[in-house]
Amino acid sequence: MKQSVRKLEISTRGQGLYEFTATANAWVEQQKMQTGLLTLFCRHTSASLLIQENADPTVRSDIQACFDRLAPEDGPYNHVCEGPDDMPAHLKTALTQVQLSIPLLNGRLVLGAWQGIYLFEHRVHPHLREIVLHLIGD
Amino acid sequence: MKQSVRKLEISTRGQGLYEFTATANAWVEQQKMQTGLLTLFCRHTSASLLIQENADPTVRSDIQACFDRLAPEDGPYNHVCEGPDDMPAHLKTALTQVQLSIPLLNGRLVLGAWQGIYLFEHRVHPHLREIVLHLIGD
Amino acid sequence: MKQSVRKLEISTRGQGLYEFTATANAWVEQQKMQTGLLTLFCRHTSASLLIQENADPTVRSDIQACFDRLAPEDGPYNHVCEGPDDMPAHLKTALTQVQLSIPLLNGRLVLGAWQGIYLFEHRVHPHLREIVLHLIGD
Repeated sequence: MKQSVRKLEISTRGQGLYEFTATANAWVEQQKMQTGLLTLFCRHTSASLLIQENADPTVRSDIQACFDRLAPEDGPYNHVCEGPDDMPAHLKTALTQVQLSIPLLNGRLVLGAWQGIYLFEHRVHPHLREIVLHLIGD
Repeated sequence: MKQSVRKLEISTRGQGLYEFTATANAWVEQQKMQTGLLTLFCRHTSASLLIQENADPTVRSDIQACFDRLAPEDGPYNHVCEGPDDMPAHLKTALTQVQLSIPLLNGRLVLGAWQGIYLFEHRVHPHLREIVLHLIGD
Repeated sequence: MKQSVRKLEISTRGQGLYEFTATANAWVEQQKMQTGLLTLFCRHTSASLLIQENADPTVRSDIQACFDRLAPEDGPYNHVCEGPDDMPAHLKTALTQVQLSIPLLNGRLVLGAWQGIYLFEHRVHPHLREIVLHLIGD
């Protein structure tokens, strides 16, 4: 049994879903494990992780619009010092998650046919986001 | 330290919460580990996993009704090609999760007295859902 | 590779976010591992776990207020036998999570600079909440 860890940086250019399934798959493949568990951890409170459909892009825009309705910019909020998109960003992060774990079987992540791994950026301005990848297995 | 993996199939007959705590417990018991971590992974983008109260069934119907209010069928959505229940299904999946991990202690999952493990089906038509169970421990 | 498990009890005095980052860090440090995966599991269906900003306290009150809007006390609900705060508590738990996993690198959890670990209590009356900490690594 062994472990591998890597820090991954993703540059975001505004709100939206940024897919990084291929990057995660490529790193996992390099670790040469057959069975294991991959954990992804997002080190932020205004961006999160999501596994969602990677086929029709309207799914992603509809997801964004729905989260805008659940956590609207016009609040009302008390925490407004970091801009109107900041408190909704914390809420959208709370409503999704900052951590995902995916089993590895026969050397591959067991993602379904339509599942992609996304960073969900909730801030308007560009950010450099850090995700930690942790793999344990053999 | 060792690992076990199993694919579990669950047939659904419309929207709702399908409990499979007993199935998960039985499989874990067969692996004969004392301490470990069980990870459940749902390979879909329109069905999800939930740990919830397994006593009063009205809790489950109220959960369904609440998610119908948060992600209503009448949207508005752009992604409508797969039926009126499809985009709400993606949203309900995003608002819950496709992965759950539960520690194992003294040979048993550390679920609380009222906690049951559910597949949360968000589509109207029958589906065969795949869940991967991954256990690591000794 | 080894494992450690501990049960942690947190006393709550009404709804709100109770930080226990320091307790989790201290226990992890005692296990003397360099690389690993910490899993936190909340054994309840009316309290949950959340990683959120640990700087400005208004973020926490805004989070509470938002979840009160998403799962209001006046429902409508069928499950009302345990008080008006009970069904909203189940919903808020479903909308967040009962489990979190955080990788360990160089002997420390890879939490971001502003990330704190919170128990999110959704009930009005005082409760004693149980969280299981599971660490695997070396």
